[in-house]
Amino acid sequence: MLIVQKYGGTSVGSVERIRAVAERVKRAADAGNQVVAVVSAMSGETNKLIALAAEFSKTPSTREMDMLLSSGERVTSALLAIALTEMGYEAIALTGRQAGIVTDSVHTKARIEEIPAEPVMAQIKAGKIVVIAGFQGVTREGEVTTLGRGGSDLTAVAIAGAIKADLCEIYTDVDGVYTTDPRIEDKAKKLDKISYEEMLELASLGAKVLQNRSVELAKKLSVKVVTRNSFNENKGTTITSEEECMEKPIVSGVALDKNQARVSLIGIADRPGIAAEIFGALANAAINVDMIVQTVGQDGKTNLDFTIPATELETARKSLEGFGGALGRQEFDNEVCKLSIVGVGMKSHSGVAAEMFAALAKENINILMISTSEIKISVVVAKKYGELAVRILHATYELDK
Amino acid sequence: MLIVQKYGGTSVGSVERIRAVAERVKRAADAGNQVVAVVSAMSGETNKLIALAAEFSKTPSTREMDMLLSSGERVTSALLAIALTEMGYEAIALTGRQAGIVTDSVHTKARIEEIPAEPVMAQIKAGKIVVIAGFQGVTREGEVTTLGRGGSDLTAVAIAGAIKADLCEIYTDVDGVYTTDPRIEDKAKKLDKISYEEMLELASLGAKVLQNRSVELAKKLSVKVVTRNSFNENKGTTITSEEECMEKPIVSGVALDKNQARVSLIGIADRPGIAAEIFGALANAAINVDMIVQTVGQDGKTNLDFTIPATELETARKSLEGFGGALGRQEFDNEVCKLSIVGVGMKSHSGVAAEMFAALAKENINILMISTSEIKISVVVAKKYGELAVRILHATYELDK
Repeated sequence: MLIVQKYGGTSVGSVERIRAVAERVKRAADAGNQVVAVVSAMSGETNKLIALAAEFSKTPSTREMDMLLSSGERVTSALLAIALTEMGYEAIALTGRQAGIVTDSVHTKARIEEIPAEPVMAQIKAGKIVVIAGFQGVTREGEVTTLGRGGSDLTAVAIAGAIKADLCEIYTDVDGVYTTDPRIEDKAKKLDKISYEEMLELASLGAKVLQNRSVELAKKLSVKVVTRNSFNENKGTTITSEEECMEKPIVSGVALDKNQARVSLIGIADRPGIAAEIFGALANAAINVDMIVQTVGQDGKTNLDFTIPATELETARKSLEGFGGALGRQEFDNEVCKLSIVGVGMKSHSGVAAEMFAALAKENINILMISTSEIKISVVVAKKYGELAVRILHATYELDK
Repeated sequence: MLIVQKYGGTSVGSVERIRAVAERVKRAADAGNQVVAVVSAMSGETNKLIALAAEFSKTPSTREMDMLLSSGERVTSALLAIALTEMGYEAIALTGRQAGIVTDSVHTKARIEEIPAEPVMAQIKAGKIVVIAGFQGVTREGEVTTLGRGGSDLTAVAIAGAIKADLCEIYTDVDGVYTTDPRIEDKAKKLDKISYEEMLELASLGAKVLQNRSVELAKKLSVKVVTRNSFNENKGTTITSEEECMEKPIVSGVALDKNQARVSLIGIADRPGIAAEIFGALANAAINVDMIVQTVGQDGKTNLDFTIPATELETARKSLEGFGGALGRQEFDNEVCKLSIVGVGMKSHSGVAAEMFAALAKENINILMISTSEIKISVVVAKKYGELAVRILHATYELDK
């Protein structure tokens, strides 16, 4: 098999850890695989460099920040290649540029535009283990860029797509994606498999293993991803296309988001385009609106409910002041949370939502908002019921089985 | 003026020091100059990286070492550019590659093959202060290389030659080149000017400010170099062509080399090519022979005296064992030192050597060997007289005036 393995900052955080990574790469190679390893900077290094730059400027040039920050991954990639060579393997370290990663020129959060397979495959064909400095690329003009948060994951997924790797293993310090947050429900189980779509909807559960940006890219390039723990030998969670998920569970996971606030506008003036004006005002204040629910009240007037990050509540209140009475009665509620169940099986199963509402009703948990998509049902409930609701739904859909 | 300034590791060794360097660059720019700054890695960083690599291998791949080591200068160049931008100047950091530095592929001690003026001059013409990561380049194939010891000096001199800079300032932690070692003779004076040739011959005095490799390149490219102390405002020493050294002093400096040992072969068999055999054997043992003096003895046999590094004495003894009696009587003397006076004025002055020998004789210092070149006279004397001889010659040629 042709395998891309990505090792994050904690996984390469010390000499001992890099040695352990070399051992893991070695095992994959010894098993007859062709291996490409993508590495992050040693944990703490990037923050150290950011702190250094902050000594000189509060708003350092992003171009120079990229030159600064890209150095950390170069160090790790060189060290891992040296370690593998010492073990008797032919290994070569490649910078983002040498691996052929071309990005746009948006420094510190560049987007990958192109990765030819050739630079990496030439080394693979020469029998070498290729170690790539993650997180970085170059523009067509040769300027050094970095890919922003989760950039090394993105490098790994993109390279895996470019060279048509059989597998892209993402090593972190957790075992994989769980049916729900194990800190809330100790019966939470690690999922063996999850579809790209479910993973995207379960962002809050999966964020620690793989950010949405990388999941989206994996989906686009049809890269089969396995997230694994670099500190043990557990099997991890495979993230792949829905077609490959044979079972299609009705519900794969339950997610809780407590950083939500609800804004209710009750009895909005019936004026064309007022909804656009409201959300335009919030967008101008850079407020990220999540759920939106609109209903028509008994008097023919419109009621609008939406959720925003709890931290943005005051900003939202100010943004809406300009509308005066046109918005009707305004309610701002910080004591809410969002609860989501996600599963590709929902598409072909009816009654999933009814079951959810019934389970919550049975425990007298009042539902304040509902929003559904093809594979997700989200409800807003009082914050104090959040953890209880997670445990109820986890049991309802038998996620501990 | 178009000025290249090079700042070594100590000069950029901390946030405060980088800030001081930014101030110095700023002053040069404010005075109306176009400035290119070449920087080393922060002091200690390169050693830290070497130590990291040593954790994984005693003989790390030189290619990967170059990727590792080149990261230190990138960090400093980005930080200095950020500091200058914060001060309100347009500044841009360039890696060795971006500055157009093409080298051969001898990793960890690459030689510069080509530097086009265009990449740096384009930025200068755009009104920018250019900050270049020293010590590094790329091969024509795009492999990262480093230039070995003194590599950042070499970058500075080469860039200055490429862009035809008016001046190349090398900042270190000493004031410049002295007439002799101030630790031996406290009347030693800093030289205002010295020719490339003298500087090369005075290597032991000048090594702390600029290695011979960079002096040779400066000579070849006709780059006017000024070595200055980054910790003060002193004027430094200008290293330039002989023609620009108006005064042409008879003696510019006195150098003492105590790491010398003398080998004497007295009464060598009269066999054609035996000298070639002797020095061939020493070369095979990687022994660097310095002075060589051959005389014909009274019996018609040949006497051969030469000096080698004191640390190589035992190796030399072993290398010569194979010759048996053919070398005559062999003497190995560790208790010697080499004393040199250097000056371009010697070419047009007679009697300089006689004056030197007389001054030493007056103090009963016995001369064991003599060797002369156009601008240098070297003698070997007993090690115990080394410092005394330096002071005598320093006074003889009035170097304290």
